[in-house]
Amino acid sequence: MALTGVLRPGHIALRVLEMGPALNHYVDVLGLIETARDDDGKRVFLKAWDEHDHHSVVLREADEAGMDYFGWKVDSNATLKKMAADIEDSGLCEDLQWIPSGEHPGTGERFRFTIPTGHVMELYAEKVILGNGCGTDGPNINPDPWPEGLKGIAPSRFDHALLYGDDLDGTVKLFTEVLGFSISERVVTKDNPDFMIGTFLTCSNKAHDVAFIRQPVKGKLHHASFELGSWEKVLRAGDILSRKRVKIDMGPTRHGITRGETIYFFDPSGNRNEVFGGGYIFYPDKPVITWYDETLGPAIFYHDRQLNDAFLSVFT
Amino acid sequence: MALTGVLRPGHIALRVLEMGPALNHYVDVLGLIETARDDDGKRVFLKAWDEHDHHSVVLREADEAGMDYFGWKVDSNATLKKMAADIEDSGLCEDLQWIPSGEHPGTGERFRFTIPTGHVMELYAEKVILGNGCGTDGPNINPDPWPEGLKGIAPSRFDHALLYGDDLDGTVKLFTEVLGFSISERVVTKDNPDFMIGTFLTCSNKAHDVAFIRQPVKGKLHHASFELGSWEKVLRAGDILSRKRVKIDMGPTRHGITRGETIYFFDPSGNRNEVFGGGYIFYPDKPVITWYDETLGPAIFYHDRQLNDAFLSVFT
Amino acid sequence: MALTGVLRPGHIALRVLEMGPALNHYVDVLGLIETARDDDGKRVFLKAWDEHDHHSVVLREADEAGMDYFGWKVDSNATLKKMAADIEDSGLCEDLQWIPSGEHPGTGERFRFTIPTGHVMELYAEKVILGNGCGTDGPNINPDPWPEGLKGIAPSRFDHALLYGDDLDGTVKLFTEVLGFSISERVVTKDNPDFMIGTFLTCSNKAHDVAFIRQPVKGKLHHASFELGSWEKVLRAGDILSRKRVKIDMGPTRHGITRGETIYFFDPSGNRNEVFGGGYIFYPDKPVITWYDETLGPAIFYHDRQLNDAFLSVFT
Amino acid sequence: MALTGVLRPGHIALRVLEMGPALNHYVDVLGLIETARDDDGKRVFLKAWDEHDHHSVVLREADEAGMDYFGWKVDSNATLKKMAADIEDSGLCEDLQWIPSGEHPGTGERFRFTIPTGHVMELYAEKVILGNGCGTDGPNINPDPWPEGLKGIAPSRFDHALLYGDDLDGTVKLFTEVLGFSISERVVTKDNPDFMIGTFLTCSNKAHDVAFIRQPVKGKLHHASFELGSWEKVLRAGDILSRKRVKIDMGPTRHGITRGETIYFFDPSGNRNEVFGGGYIFYPDKPVITWYDETLGPAIFYHDRQLNDAFLSVFT
Repeated sequence: MALTGVLRPGHIALRVLEMGPALNHYVDVLGLIETARDDDGKRVFLKAWDEHDHHSVVLREADEAGMDYFGWKVDSNATLKKMAADIEDSGLCEDLQWIPSGEHPGTGERFRFTIPTGHVMELYAEKVILGNGCGTDGPNINPDPWPEGLKGIAPSRFDHALLYGDDLDGTVKLFTEVLGFSISERVVTKDNPDFMIGTFLTCSNKAHDVAFIRQPVKGKLHHASFELGSWEKVLRAGDILSRKRVKIDMGPTRHGITRGETIYFFDPSGNRNEVFGGGYIFYPDKPVITWYDETLGPAIFYHDRQLNDAFLSVFT
Repeated sequence: MALTGVLRPGHIALRVLEMGPALNHYVDVLGLIETARDDDGKRVFLKAWDEHDHHSVVLREADEAGMDYFGWKVDSNATLKKMAADIEDSGLCEDLQWIPSGEHPGTGERFRFTIPTGHVMELYAEKVILGNGCGTDGPNINPDPWPEGLKGIAPSRFDHALLYGDDLDGTVKLFTEVLGFSISERVVTKDNPDFMIGTFLTCSNKAHDVAFIRQPVKGKLHHASFELGSWEKVLRAGDILSRKRVKIDMGPTRHGITRGETIYFFDPSGNRNEVFGGGYIFYPDKPVITWYDETLGPAIFYHDRQLNDAFLSVFT
Repeated sequence: MALTGVLRPGHIALRVLEMGPALNHYVDVLGLIETARDDDGKRVFLKAWDEHDHHSVVLREADEAGMDYFGWKVDSNATLKKMAADIEDSGLCEDLQWIPSGEHPGTGERFRFTIPTGHVMELYAEKVILGNGCGTDGPNINPDPWPEGLKGIAPSRFDHALLYGDDLDGTVKLFTEVLGFSISERVVTKDNPDFMIGTFLTCSNKAHDVAFIRQPVKGKLHHASFELGSWEKVLRAGDILSRKRVKIDMGPTRHGITRGETIYFFDPSGNRNEVFGGGYIFYPDKPVITWYDETLGPAIFYHDRQLNDAFLSVFT
Repeated sequence: MALTGVLRPGHIALRVLEMGPALNHYVDVLGLIETARDDDGKRVFLKAWDEHDHHSVVLREADEAGMDYFGWKVDSNATLKKMAADIEDSGLCEDLQWIPSGEHPGTGERFRFTIPTGHVMELYAEKVILGNGCGTDGPNINPDPWPEGLKGIAPSRFDHALLYGDDLDGTVKLFTEVLGFSISERVVTKDNPDFMIGTFLTCSNKAHDVAFIRQPVKGKLHHASFELGSWEKVLRAGDILSRKRVKIDMGPTRHGITRGETIYFFDPSGNRNEVFGGGYIFYPDKPVITWYDETLGPAIFYHDRQLNDAFLSVFT
């Protein structure tokens, strides 16, 4: 099979300070769909409309915002077992554990581990399929291109996250050598091209499935990103965010890295979100794109050619 | 590695009746870039701007339009050898042969075979990288999102082809069981869902890399398709085609299958081209989409909900 | 004042065969807003979201589809009186009459007359303002760019109509010499440029406010058109129409005349509608654009460069 | 005639520090077309592609950037004479003078005057028509929707300017009472809605043809604006500006006032330019939109909901 191993970002678990405002944000403004919540209401599970799996976002009420963990869907239980063993063998990760099936609703056993940059990651092979609501004569039969009744910004899927952490080399080694990812783009110091400041990693034809920027922190989230499909939808997203008084951090603009057309904003707890369109089709034989540290400005915000203050200082 | 085996459509070799008008079409109107031609001028090699490899379209002057062959880039020479053996073992293909390195400029050895629907296919592992012209401080360094000096419609890449042939079952068996493709969408008779009228196959996250429709012919080309990136570029393509008096077959419109935003037109020899944007992200665990024969109209042309006369009758 | 006299198309009164399906079409699919209906339910009044006036579409149940009349908003009662007198003096019109204030809800006195092509036209100076629902601190105060809760295609306004009739010369004389319109574009026979086949007329900076095509009929409607704002909204309109099984006549495509980006479709009674975006800014000193009869194809449908069968034969 | 009096912004005369870099900016990056220059090369005349008149931008080399004057096309010489007399009678303006025909190439006599905010304005009735290059069988005959060979950002026309000055009340009185303009939008202090901070004025169906913001200066230019036609073209403009290292001031974003989709940037002399799309259709009976001073942020930059530092402090 041409697409094997780690298939995609499967879920991101975010900590929010209050569930009520968080749901208002993620459901009414961003336009995700609630699919389940824990009996005690402490966790709520959500999906974007064009995702078939049960959920891709997990919200948990906590005292501090940030990312609890990031889950990757793998192609099979055999891959799950093998990768768990490979991760253990690599010696790169800590706190390895198996989360039993059902701990997430509709989800099989998950293998959890902490990567060198301090982020908690998971692999899993099974999640119940709910569908995307487009079939007209049954699920996946004669579908319309998009469903009726979408709310808010309505991205098609959870797409990737940008994460901040210290041991970038260890994490990149893990993703490329153990988990089978490719580097699509990297930011390096011009004097020492082996010293990566940022690395954009993909397990697919997407320009990135996860990205890391070297910062002297552990396990931090820069943003969780959702796919929109067009630049006009980015404009519409900006309009909706302004109307709803959601704080926009940057954009609409274009990224130099990935060419994405983007807008950044914050959830009520301070977690940064992105919705974006565009980008290119990646292949593993595509040359890696290199950005020098001196061009980090246009690499991130291509139009302004400089970072805003929040880019390096605000994360959760 | 997450993307393995057959990576992508690597080249399509088209027969054209006269090279001069063909080049006017493919270079000045469509906007491909000539990268080489044979000493005798009988074959011209072209690429789209965002392709890094040496060429993706081969034009050959001949008495009859159509497709000579379709080439697939695989991830390594080892895969090339293994797949060649697997194809031979499958007994599904005819006229197996190795084309020596260099027969295409900048291209390694190719394994050629004729599939059950009569189309000549090739696998190859090596092609010289020319780059996409976007780097500002060297190839792939600090790139702009698109290069200056593009002409005409300027698609980013050769994306897929739709092919007509008789033994659809044999060809689908080959692609799914030997070459590792997935079925993303299929058109079936409602009474017998196992009888496929059309099959859309992917080896990637794209909604299709090649598609076949069952017709009582051998080795025919319905269209060769190039990727544009946005619906506004489809409008611009239509404007350019009209200005240049290129015959438009259908569109701008949306496909039901793949959700693509599309326009069909003909090269001067009668080969149908498509430029398109949009579509969804495919994963191998995504449920197959099924269209019934009675909804073939909206499956192909979602807005009109019916085929035009040319769809089933005009091919090369 | 820079904009004087006839300001804009103010309302179009359409005959529909059954009110229920008509309202489903104009409210749920097209996305107009019902603002009033007659006590007996025989007429329903609608507006588009960005129109401030009380209504712009009047639906009346009748045995035959078509246009009852077309109303123009003029800048003042003084203009209304003067133009009524001028029309009478011109001798070009028939069936002159005053419709009393209130016959349309919220509307002042209307002057009605039948023009040489057989269409019933009206002038009026007063209509109650309902607003566009965008103000955040009161009507027209600190407005958002668009209101929440829009349904369906949701055009911004009723924009123009294309009408079929026989005495084109008389009607053009009326509009240009009596009502102060300019000709923006015209289709003529190449041999005799004074013989107009079609005339596009404007009283504003819009490329057209009404258009006429010479046909051996009286008082016929080709289409009533609504403004959308972008080509992406035209795609979305096509998607909605297909989903709702509304018969699309043509498009998405571009008009040569006016450069509009368009889609044509039919209401359940057979009245043709258009939604469109684009076009240029007209000024009265802009040279008239001339199309020859031999280029009527690209003049109407720029991409296909030919009329479809319905263009000349289907009207109401 | 429905459009009378002042028809449109006809030209803006800008001072630039060096003509070479200025032409590189206005011709190669912005994409205007040079149509004439003075014998001594001190002034260069330019037009945008879809303008029919001889020129709309005049560049003059000077020691200081800024606007020399802003010219308005009126509908006739009779209007020119009458408005000149009305302006004189109003007592609102200074430095009234007639500029002889031919002082601008291809342009008739101009009446020049200085308005209360210190800006030099002109009225003129005649300018040679060069056309927009779209006709296929002669000027304005069977035109394509856009010409080939455009360079850079390629806006369709010079659209409006935003000007800074002190005596806003006098200038607004002049434009509304003498020149026939309407107020489309205004920014006022919430406590005293009669105290206008900013006024957007139109003589057409456009949301604005000129705008003024009250600042304790005389005759200053905030930006000269050019019309693009779509949000996707705003993105492309941003890409071109970044590639060419043109300093972007703000955007892409949306204005609250006029709903325009915009990007601001600077020419090499520090004059701010805008290219934009979108906006609504204005009519003189449309209610005036009011913004309170406390919402000046979203009024100007709807997404960010706050001004950037440069908005109030950087002008020429």
